[in-house]
Amino acid sequence: MQVKVYQDVLDANDRIAALNRVRLESLGLLTLNLIGSPGCGKTSLLERTLQELKAAGIRCGVIEGDLETSRDAERISACGVPAVQINTKGGCHLDAASVQRVLDDLPLTEMDVLFIENVGNLVCPAGFDLGEAGKVVVLSVTEGDDKPSKYPVIFRKASAALITKSDLLSHTDFNVDAAQRDMRAVNPPLPVMLLSARTGDGIAEWMGWILARTRRRSHG
Amino acid sequence: MQVKVYQDVLDANDRIAALNRVRLESLGLLTLNLIGSPGCGKTSLLERTLQELKAAGIRCGVIEGDLETSRDAERISACGVPAVQINTKGGCHLDAASVQRVLDDLPLTEMDVLFIENVGNLVCPAGFDLGEAGKVVVLSVTEGDDKPSKYPVIFRKASAALITKSDLLSHTDFNVDAAQRDMRAVNPPLPVMLLSARTGDGIAEWMGWILARTRRRSHG
Repeated sequence: MQVKVYQDVLDANDRIAALNRVRLESLGLLTLNLIGSPGCGKTSLLERTLQELKAAGIRCGVIEGDLETSRDAERISACGVPAVQINTKGGCHLDAASVQRVLDDLPLTEMDVLFIENVGNLVCPAGFDLGEAGKVVVLSVTEGDDKPSKYPVIFRKASAALITKSDLLSHTDFNVDAAQRDMRAVNPPLPVMLLSARTGDGIAEWMGWILARTRRRSHG
Repeated sequence: MQVKVYQDVLDANDRIAALNRVRLESLGLLTLNLIGSPGCGKTSLLERTLQELKAAGIRCGVIEGDLETSRDAERISACGVPAVQINTKGGCHLDAASVQRVLDDLPLTEMDVLFIENVGNLVCPAGFDLGEAGKVVVLSVTEGDDKPSKYPVIFRKASAALITKSDLLSHTDFNVDAAQRDMRAVNPPLPVMLLSARTGDGIAEWMGWILARTRRRSHG
């Protein structure tokens, strides 16, 4: 009974996600679903990413997911980028319907890249397609290099993995090679990038990854 | 329909949690349910805590929850403390039934404190009573001081909050006062302790909190 209901929920989600995907792709938008633990640095990374993309003439928009508050959408708006906040009111992930409801609140026809920052959670968001082109998993060095083995689902489904807060690497026991090896054990072709939103180290590679996937390369 | 099923699941969980609680309390055990994001330092904190409690003559046992691997139970066993691992195989939280199933695998009658390290997740575990005496929420300084406002549910339900990795505080923008203020906004009497499992700073206060709640004070 529970299993069947869960399956129905996922099927319903997939149908709406498919509608979102058709809509976003038909507008030429690259949509990326950022997934990682609370505090892994998703919003700080987004702030830096949006600045760099703006400088490259790429127009962005952001959907922010959190249980409560609009703090993240306010941080993104302060970057001069259109942002909407979804509050899940205790819910542990975004679903396709919640994204569908806010798409009209963004100037989609004037955007090249849509970032969706999911609720901070390395587990549940992995199961819910939102209609994105790809999931990007974010893991910070302060979380430990054992996480890819302990939480393999999202690493299996991701199109790219970002290891963030590299500026704190020397203060931790995080072994980049071990983390990368464990990520590739569950997802062999996964691109893994080590970076720091604070210092900018590694950001160029991440920019290159995004730019290679955007249809419109420059509006500068 | 979905809402009703969810309610049924929670009701069934609460019934089993009540059984667990009666069993654990009748044995004089203090059971603490540790909840926090992946990589917030729960296992490292446990290792340190178990050493300190052992030195104080307090006998402990541990239930470890993870999606996959038995790495954490192996780390705990290496401390000379009985530990069992629950693998949720993708599940985002422990439930009372999963705990009930492993209780027979621990020497409960020879223990004073049972720690349950939940799946790394700041959201879902908050909703599932396991039969514990109290929930302890763990937040690391590297996650950011905005988390109590953005993920208030677990802070509302917790009996204590631990701010971990204080040795990294100077490398972050984490504002301890702001975090504490936001925790107390949702849960005014919440005890908040700042500590580092690595340096031992603040561990004495945490020990004091545990010792004040154990029935049997010393077996040294």
